[in-house]
Amino acid sequence: MSYPDHVRIREVGPRDGIQSEKTRVPTADKIRFLDVLSSTGLRYIEAVSFVSPKAVPQMADAREVWEGMRRDPDVFYSALVPNARGAQTAADVGADGMQVFISATDGYNRRNVGKSVEDSFADVADVVEISSKADIPLEGTISCAFGDPYEGDVEPERVADVAARMAGMGVSAISLGDTTGMGTPRGMEEVVTAVRRRLPDLDINLHLHDTRGTGLANVLKGLELGVDYFDSSVGGMGGSPYATGASGNIVTEDLVHMLADMGIETGIDLGKLLEASRLAQGFIEGELPSRLLKAGPRWRVPS
Amino acid sequence: MSYPDHVRIREVGPRDGIQSEKTRVPTADKIRFLDVLSSTGLRYIEAVSFVSPKAVPQMADAREVWEGMRRDPDVFYSALVPNARGAQTAADVGADGMQVFISATDGYNRRNVGKSVEDSFADVADVVEISSKADIPLEGTISCAFGDPYEGDVEPERVADVAARMAGMGVSAISLGDTTGMGTPRGMEEVVTAVRRRLPDLDINLHLHDTRGTGLANVLKGLELGVDYFDSSVGGMGGSPYATGASGNIVTEDLVHMLADMGIETGIDLGKLLEASRLAQGFIEGELPSRLLKAGPRWRVPS
Repeated sequence: MSYPDHVRIREVGPRDGIQSEKTRVPTADKIRFLDVLSSTGLRYIEAVSFVSPKAVPQMADAREVWEGMRRDPDVFYSALVPNARGAQTAADVGADGMQVFISATDGYNRRNVGKSVEDSFADVADVVEISSKADIPLEGTISCAFGDPYEGDVEPERVADVAARMAGMGVSAISLGDTTGMGTPRGMEEVVTAVRRRLPDLDINLHLHDTRGTGLANVLKGLELGVDYFDSSVGGMGGSPYATGASGNIVTEDLVHMLADMGIETGIDLGKLLEASRLAQGFIEGELPSRLLKAGPRWRVPS
Repeated sequence: MSYPDHVRIREVGPRDGIQSEKTRVPTADKIRFLDVLSSTGLRYIEAVSFVSPKAVPQMADAREVWEGMRRDPDVFYSALVPNARGAQTAADVGADGMQVFISATDGYNRRNVGKSVEDSFADVADVVEISSKADIPLEGTISCAFGDPYEGDVEPERVADVAARMAGMGVSAISLGDTTGMGTPRGMEEVVTAVRRRLPDLDINLHLHDTRGTGLANVLKGLELGVDYFDSSVGGMGGSPYATGASGNIVTEDLVHMLADMGIETGIDLGKLLEASRLAQGFIEGELPSRLLKAGPRWRVPS
């Protein structure tokens, strides 16, 4: 079995993690969190989403957060944008990258953004235009790529169709989103294989949630398929507010710990990552699902 | 990638799960729990351990529990036994199987049973003699096979040495115990490969704990290595009282759910398993780590 030597990890805690918190996280805490994350060796951080404050009240201060954070020159800071308005803000603040999203199925897409997949493609086109004009790389997320809680299983070919359409519009990479944690090793294999068959040179990211215990098993399967680019959130915070039973992203520190043990480089300092996780625990309600935060790394010898 | 078509799951919640509970679980609850487990389609259940009540107070009523439970003719009920005394009790009550254990390293062995590995082999020999005379199959567990929290990494060859020695004494299978959750996909590969190289025909069980998030990733790696026999506990209860940061066994329902999705047969009814998990939650302190208990199966369409 051969695995990639090096894996890119994009930290999505400041966006996907914080956005589903019910209690408002103070702007200063968000900025401090981002600054600590920037010092861990992480090279990709999804810092905010530029969305309607009505849709996601937690992101109402996204612009202040963006402008308040320290921009480490070695870190690629991206923003999630649903439409032209969000993309324009991302362009105005000089984001390193933008992330646009669409579902492969109407069920989740309607619950998430209130319109059909077809109608959402018009928003994607707007974002493409703005990012292209601003010369900012754009990545496309396919939400619920491994199952839609309202429609059930999603045909891998439908995911490949959406990926091909977005690739044709010029996105630099496709993130396959396991938005509500329906992903399994079988699903990883089927969907990644279907997308690869259609788009052999496409850069694929796996955006996983650990809702049903298969989070790192899905990563392992992804690595076996040659995927070398994953989303995760420190502490495992987050989840989709629109999906029943959905829980947080896979845990960055648990992921880095497993990869390090497998000899796969991430460039991330596990100790510093745990500090960021402890910081997040301070402003998140309830106990974060991080295992490493409780148990410590496996090579720690107890006293 | 080829996986086994069918996997044997041994439920260890009544023993490994309950034994680390601080609050005494009433005998009637233990019996009821076993009876519900017997109706789920599980074919292997580690029902109790026959150990000193001083060492493990929670198992002081093991004999009453054993004699009180319904013996389903389709279920193989085993008991964990540390020594001649425990083995004799298992023989007296007519256990279907016995489980003896030893560590590959002195560090954990001394903390767990207060003697060196070499001295523990004398106990294993006693158990072999009694089980053999009673014609009851005996399986051997190697504790901390993937790392000893007091000594660190364990050389796979040392694990293979202990496995070979136990196999030579006549055990029917070896369970590789990730007692304190230090197992990783790399560890699975190294240790299983080392044991297989020495003992190609040995029946191997993986006894995993999900302390650092890699539980089901370790299962996936095990399946890839051809392992078709796993220990788990309903709800994910349990953990080692002698190891810092150690948490419960991998969760039976989460395991069955992943395997079913991969088309791997277990013969277990997931709905009934979830009932058993809810029952366990009733007498276990704190929230069980089961993911399925919270999120439900992936194919459940939310209302």
